[in-house]
Amino acid sequence: MSDSAQKIPFIRKLVVVGIGLIGGSFAAGLKNRGVCEEVIGISRNPDQAKQAVELGVVDRAFTSLDEIATELTDEDVIFIAVPTLSVEKVLLDIHRCVTAKVTITDGASVKGNVFIAAQKIFGQMPSEFVLGHPIAGSEKSGVTAANPNLYENHRVILTPVESTSAQHLLRVTQLWEILGAEVLTMTVEDHDDVLAATSHLPHAIAYSLVDTLAHDIANPNIFRYAAGGFRDFTRIASSDPVMWHDIMKANKAAILRSLDLFTDNLQRMRSSIEKEDSDYLLEVFSRAKEARDEYTKMLKK
Amino acid sequence: MSDSAQKIPFIRKLVVVGIGLIGGSFAAGLKNRGVCEEVIGISRNPDQAKQAVELGVVDRAFTSLDEIATELTDEDVIFIAVPTLSVEKVLLDIHRCVTAKVTITDGASVKGNVFIAAQKIFGQMPSEFVLGHPIAGSEKSGVTAANPNLYENHRVILTPVESTSAQHLLRVTQLWEILGAEVLTMTVEDHDDVLAATSHLPHAIAYSLVDTLAHDIANPNIFRYAAGGFRDFTRIASSDPVMWHDIMKANKAAILRSLDLFTDNLQRMRSSIEKEDSDYLLEVFSRAKEARDEYTKMLKK
Repeated sequence: MSDSAQKIPFIRKLVVVGIGLIGGSFAAGLKNRGVCEEVIGISRNPDQAKQAVELGVVDRAFTSLDEIATELTDEDVIFIAVPTLSVEKVLLDIHRCVTAKVTITDGASVKGNVFIAAQKIFGQMPSEFVLGHPIAGSEKSGVTAANPNLYENHRVILTPVESTSAQHLLRVTQLWEILGAEVLTMTVEDHDDVLAATSHLPHAIAYSLVDTLAHDIANPNIFRYAAGGFRDFTRIASSDPVMWHDIMKANKAAILRSLDLFTDNLQRMRSSIEKEDSDYLLEVFSRAKEARDEYTKMLKK
Repeated sequence: MSDSAQKIPFIRKLVVVGIGLIGGSFAAGLKNRGVCEEVIGISRNPDQAKQAVELGVVDRAFTSLDEIATELTDEDVIFIAVPTLSVEKVLLDIHRCVTAKVTITDGASVKGNVFIAAQKIFGQMPSEFVLGHPIAGSEKSGVTAANPNLYENHRVILTPVESTSAQHLLRVTQLWEILGAEVLTMTVEDHDDVLAATSHLPHAIAYSLVDTLAHDIANPNIFRYAAGGFRDFTRIASSDPVMWHDIMKANKAAILRSLDLFTDNLQRMRSSIEKEDSDYLLEVFSRAKEARDEYTKMLKK
């Protein structure tokens, strides 16, 4: 545990907007660890709001931020945990109804579009808004999937910008560390590039491969006898379609850049298969295996 | 268990050529189940041959088929378990030195090239040669990875051709069923098409993606922060480079066909990301999720 995690920050009210898997796990984790005086959930869906209270994920829940906006003070924190393209709407709500200098942070998968939306809405990036992205998920979703220990041993990437205040950054870092996460920082641009290549592109590829087999190849045996290799792809392609639609739009430029590099590489492989260029194939296959071995070593460290 | 598995076939000698994971597991599995009078291993590598006996995977082992060819009778079975492109060399050995009508079968990942090689070497496809492919593997390899229960609950695809004798087909089917495998039959062409789409193409894609990230994207953070989705791809891309090189050459035509369908699909996805065509993206993502859900249901049946 790092130094910053040793002193527990004082937080009066924690407001979590969007109480699905990501928001619900954050709320329940901090509630269980007794870090906040009160944990409040906001969900547009009244049933989910009610359920969040019944499940003990939050202390109180409302369907709109307006209902508790005037209660908030500088000692409070708002965590935005809605799908990527819906963050802007929540920022508009905050701008409209929250007057205190509350620490704001989010969990959206793309950071560039949130940064731009915040500058547009607030005139400039607020010093109290710390952009973030927990690298954690599950095939399950919704408040019933909330797990107070979801973030243990997972990475959280924070992407502070020039105007971000060190005090608010520290506060958000401490909250994630209390939940057992490892906090890394990088620039907004690096985050979106790295995630485009290592997460968004693989998902686009997996969706496209499963669609090719389900739709473009006219062989009824394809799925019946689907063998090794394919199962991993179908698991990747089983995530929430709306979430991935949002990500493809929000991180479009970086995804297209890495997709084009991949397409070029795949076309080189295609032509080496066609020409039976053993040297090239063995070089690429060995290089990929080495990269995998290094990556595995890195994970174990 | 099907009818054919209830009566245990009589086999005098089982000869396994290539005693790595696939051959060693077949040998050890039948030896443990007491089905054969004797299990003989053939490995070009004298150390592996010695080790196979020491580990109890086989009863005797030799470095060349010639050493036991004259011992063989019509009641014996040869299982060829060498990499795809090396099967032809073993068939040449059999043609040269085995005179008895031994049941021959193999475990290579591609069937069309083995079928062609056999016709070339024997003049026509021998009625006693049953083409086969167990859908089982492991990240481990070599005789030390041999596991007598590797094939339990795995599928084995046999691809009998017109000249294949029903008696030899039954014999090979029974052997696999004794090992706990489920035996399916399909045509050579269907096998190579289905495997190209569901196994060979996914592997080519995974190798190409890992290579793109390791080689083409100049960002040192790529592997350090590699996130969800990527790990599954690196596992697929960690298989033996030589084995996959052989498969890409042996099943070239079918792999290129499915690779081109995938590339077209990916380019449609690329253009829909660029144009922010939400309808197309949501349709493809939902269709892939449905296909995955159906596939998962099918596996559970």
